[in-house]
Amino acid sequence: YGKNTIKFLRLHKEGKKQFVKEVEVCAHLRLTSAQEYLEGNNSLVIPTDTIKNIVLVLAKKNGIPSLEQFAIDICNHFMTTFCQVAYVKAYVQEVPWQRLHEDGVPHIHSFICVPDGIRFCEAEQCRNGPLIVFAGIKDLKLMKTTQSGFEGFYKNEHTTLPERHDRILCGELFCKWSYGECKDFDFNCIWKKIRECILEAFAGPPDCGEYSPSYQKTVNCIQMLVLSRVPQVQVIEAVLNNTFYNVVDMKNLGLTNDKEVLVPVETPYGSCACTLGRKKFFEA
Amino acid sequence: YGKNTIKFLRLHKEGKKQFVKEVEVCAHLRLTSAQEYLEGNNSLVIPTDTIKNIVLVLAKKNGIPSLEQFAIDICNHFMTTFCQVAYVKAYVQEVPWQRLHEDGVPHIHSFICVPDGIRFCEAEQCRNGPLIVFAGIKDLKLMKTTQSGFEGFYKNEHTTLPERHDRILCGELFCKWSYGECKDFDFNCIWKKIRECILEAFAGPPDCGEYSPSYQKTVNCIQMLVLSRVPQVQVIEAVLNNTFYNVVDMKNLGLTNDKEVLVPVETPYGSCACTLGRKKFFEA
Amino acid sequence: YGKNTIKFLRLHKEGKKQFVKEVEVCAHLRLTSAQEYLEGNNSLVIPTDTIKNIVLVLAKKNGIPSLEQFAIDICNHFMTTFCQVAYVKAYVQEVPWQRLHEDGVPHIHSFICVPDGIRFCEAEQCRNGPLIVFAGIKDLKLMKTTQSGFEGFYKNEHTTLPERHDRILCGELFCKWSYGECKDFDFNCIWKKIRECILEAFAGPPDCGEYSPSYQKTVNCIQMLVLSRVPQVQVIEAVLNNTFYNVVDMKNLGLTNDKEVLVPVETPYGSCACTLGRKKFFEA
Amino acid sequence: YGKNTIKFLRLHKEGKKQFVKEVEVCAHLRLTSAQEYLEGNNSLVIPTDTIKNIVLVLAKKNGIPSLEQFAIDICNHFMTTFCQVAYVKAYVQEVPWQRLHEDGVPHIHSFICVPDGIRFCEAEQCRNGPLIVFAGIKDLKLMKTTQSGFEGFYKNEHTTLPERHDRILCGELFCKWSYGECKDFDFNCIWKKIRECILEAFAGPPDCGEYSPSYQKTVNCIQMLVLSRVPQVQVIEAVLNNTFYNVVDMKNLGLTNDKEVLVPVETPYGSCACTLGRKKFFEA
Repeated sequence: YGKNTIKFLRLHKEGKKQFVKEVEVCAHLRLTSAQEYLEGNNSLVIPTDTIKNIVLVLAKKNGIPSLEQFAIDICNHFMTTFCQVAYVKAYVQEVPWQRLHEDGVPHIHSFICVPDGIRFCEAEQCRNGPLIVFAGIKDLKLMKTTQSGFEGFYKNEHTTLPERHDRILCGELFCKWSYGECKDFDFNCIWKKIRECILEAFAGPPDCGEYSPSYQKTVNCIQMLVLSRVPQVQVIEAVLNNTFYNVVDMKNLGLTNDKEVLVPVETPYGSCACTLGRKKFFEA
Repeated sequence: YGKNTIKFLRLHKEGKKQFVKEVEVCAHLRLTSAQEYLEGNNSLVIPTDTIKNIVLVLAKKNGIPSLEQFAIDICNHFMTTFCQVAYVKAYVQEVPWQRLHEDGVPHIHSFICVPDGIRFCEAEQCRNGPLIVFAGIKDLKLMKTTQSGFEGFYKNEHTTLPERHDRILCGELFCKWSYGECKDFDFNCIWKKIRECILEAFAGPPDCGEYSPSYQKTVNCIQMLVLSRVPQVQVIEAVLNNTFYNVVDMKNLGLTNDKEVLVPVETPYGSCACTLGRKKFFEA
Repeated sequence: YGKNTIKFLRLHKEGKKQFVKEVEVCAHLRLTSAQEYLEGNNSLVIPTDTIKNIVLVLAKKNGIPSLEQFAIDICNHFMTTFCQVAYVKAYVQEVPWQRLHEDGVPHIHSFICVPDGIRFCEAEQCRNGPLIVFAGIKDLKLMKTTQSGFEGFYKNEHTTLPERHDRILCGELFCKWSYGECKDFDFNCIWKKIRECILEAFAGPPDCGEYSPSYQKTVNCIQMLVLSRVPQVQVIEAVLNNTFYNVVDMKNLGLTNDKEVLVPVETPYGSCACTLGRKKFFEA
Repeated sequence: YGKNTIKFLRLHKEGKKQFVKEVEVCAHLRLTSAQEYLEGNNSLVIPTDTIKNIVLVLAKKNGIPSLEQFAIDICNHFMTTFCQVAYVKAYVQEVPWQRLHEDGVPHIHSFICVPDGIRFCEAEQCRNGPLIVFAGIKDLKLMKTTQSGFEGFYKNEHTTLPERHDRILCGELFCKWSYGECKDFDFNCIWKKIRECILEAFAGPPDCGEYSPSYQKTVNCIQMLVLSRVPQVQVIEAVLNNTFYNVVDMKNLGLTNDKEVLVPVETPYGSCACTLGRKKFFEA
């Protein structure tokens, strides 16, 4: 198969107010034949350059009302235009430009990049198969400074980790969920709602939080809350890349350190991942 | 000289409410003698490991009320403790953790990383010289989708760039300013005010913006506004790394493109820089 | 499942001569139960810290005769020691230290890092299933300055790419192949032989090269040569990330440019991938 | 001032044999006036796009016989063509393409990227001042697995580092030297000789090495050997970014570890730097 990445900016105006979407689109194509690999026969190959043109033309004609709708448009175009395409996947990722505000007043044409979690989506389709839509968030870095521990784990002769009931929980979250075949959603609104669920499940109530017995359980809480609150989500995958922090031992320096100064532990670096669907389906 | 980078987290509590600073500290030391280089005599060398311990002990004892105060504390410690130190510089950079909010309610112990401009500072001192404090912001990505042009530039036989009166202005801004020797400032408050000046000067009034005839002039406007509004700033340096966008020519594709679809131009990549002080002093 | 990354150095001596392996090991584990996710019950969880200890102990006891043998050792250890492990995968990647030579004489204990393609391997096993071994090379950057073209491709109204019969072929190659269950190989020797096949198939005969009609065909040639020369390889996957170069049009500057000065085209960025096995099995 | 980065490929042929240089050029210009910053008057500004054109035209006309000669050509062009230029600096860096060999036979047109130290140079000139040429190597990663220690350093209450007489010496080296005004050198030949000096001074004799009492002393040895062997070098700056490795304590795991398994220590991360010239001039 072939894969192509295209970056561009799509502007539009409503009166004098300007709107901007900067996206990176990655289109994967697989053809029905493999003659270009086996025989060097290029007659069915759609050049990278043509794919770029098509993506730009679709952006010009349709705009980008949501990342998901744009990904769907790309899939539809390739499936209906090229009978040699056996499979198409369109991945779309957004540069997180936000409108600038001055004293609470939104600016008419100025923007600032605020990368507190990157929105992305995917649409994919096999010929004669359904068009499936995924959405997600990545590079979302979160931290709880208390209400996290790790106890009661399996121990043997290679265990040196002490049990801890008050550690830092910090990590980079990746979540990706499927909407199935249903396509008439308000994708922008649903995405924002899911982002709020993720933050709420990670943090717990604002006045007291909620104790996390492990990264794994926190991952599961996030998935469970999204599934319970957002009926459009069918399956949700979550990966949490852990950053561990150790309380610095200051005894040799004549000081006690009551979880005030901590250093990141860069090795080992871990992550835990889980995919959770509706009908009691579980795959880890 | 020697340089060391240390990353750590400093937590503190007020009642049940938790506060976090994650910083990266880089300490530069130059000794009065060079015997460790020339003769391999280590008797005056302060090991990296000791420097790390000192930074962590200072963080434990003093906390980090502001990055600037912490950098000053580090300089003072090295100058007063080690008579073999001829010069010390402490650079401190912050990981931009922000308190999470749920429906507008601040969370008691949960944070999200929001890297919309990184705050840093520097304090430096030569033995028998003044302690100078710098502060700054880096990795601040800004865009104006209109009210920017570039016309009337120098032309010769190697010129191919057309004049443009409605282009995108987009770039990554680095600003660093000095506070001189004065040290009893509310560094946190001043830094926020300067950040607001930068955004305001870049964007112009929220309802109409302000026309930028060049990246250079925008850099100058930022510097001028900071100097006029913030008397504590003595000299301000600004570097704007430009990202250019070209309107895609869609004539071959049978379409007109009225600045709706643009692609980033990755080469040539440019930047412009300027340092501006008070008394008509100018150095570019 | 969980994933952990550990970096370390393994030294050994033969007489006074020193040998070094620096590796990054990533261990993936999936447990038979999901109670740690669903219920926060950690009793079967093997902490990241324990996994790190096990990897280091295995390195100490067995050394790293080859990356593949070390990955096999890790899989075997987890499968035989922990009955709660349902699946284990060990990925091992090497930092490319090479012995320094002075005037052709190998140095007894000094090394230089030469990253001209990174060696890696994977061993994986499901409980009650076979242990499968993969090996590969990544980040291998290659260029042919001639004997490459791209003609006769599919054309429609979105096509703007001209046909070219003398372009640059440049890209970053990723290859991964499986050895199946067979484990008594000289993995180091086979890996070197495969690397040579890859370079030979990419470049063609040293005195004239071989014309490449497309990236796809070059990928296929690499796979075919490896399969024909190295009987231990069962299936081989190859991905070539293309870097395109355009001949600079210098007509406006009053010059002809006969493929002398070219600039890289960063967008669109493409890649082509193919997986090829023995029994006429083909999956793209 | 303004800065521009341009990447391109320069090919040339001798008979059927092909040669390639891929470089990244960064041109810094400072104008005699600052009116473009202060008044938005662009009439003397040389656009980034024009600078790119000039660099590409020079590459087309002159080729790149050496990085240094190309940097000199760029400086000369800007100084003689534009009277508004007060200062010009040209930085040129090379992508380390090496000719592929098959069984020792060099390939006529195929290359592999081998980044074992990146070659770069700089030429700079103020109007009415001399043209100064620098050259250098960066990203050169070296390791000695023995014959390195660190003892006798300064100790106080914050010292926790033990003395070590057999540690790993590992780091990334940056060296930059000046040739002064002299320009009729065989820059390619001198650069290779200096690279050999650096490796020899780092490693010591191939059969036994040479004991290093500190990173600082090793930096000095490198500088001294280059100055003594290469008369064209006037001043040499060297920076060694240290990577520390700790022997893993395996007592808790029931094993002794005789410097066989070590882990990199990512914090604190240090570097030491020194600039050394001829007439006993010393600046650290």
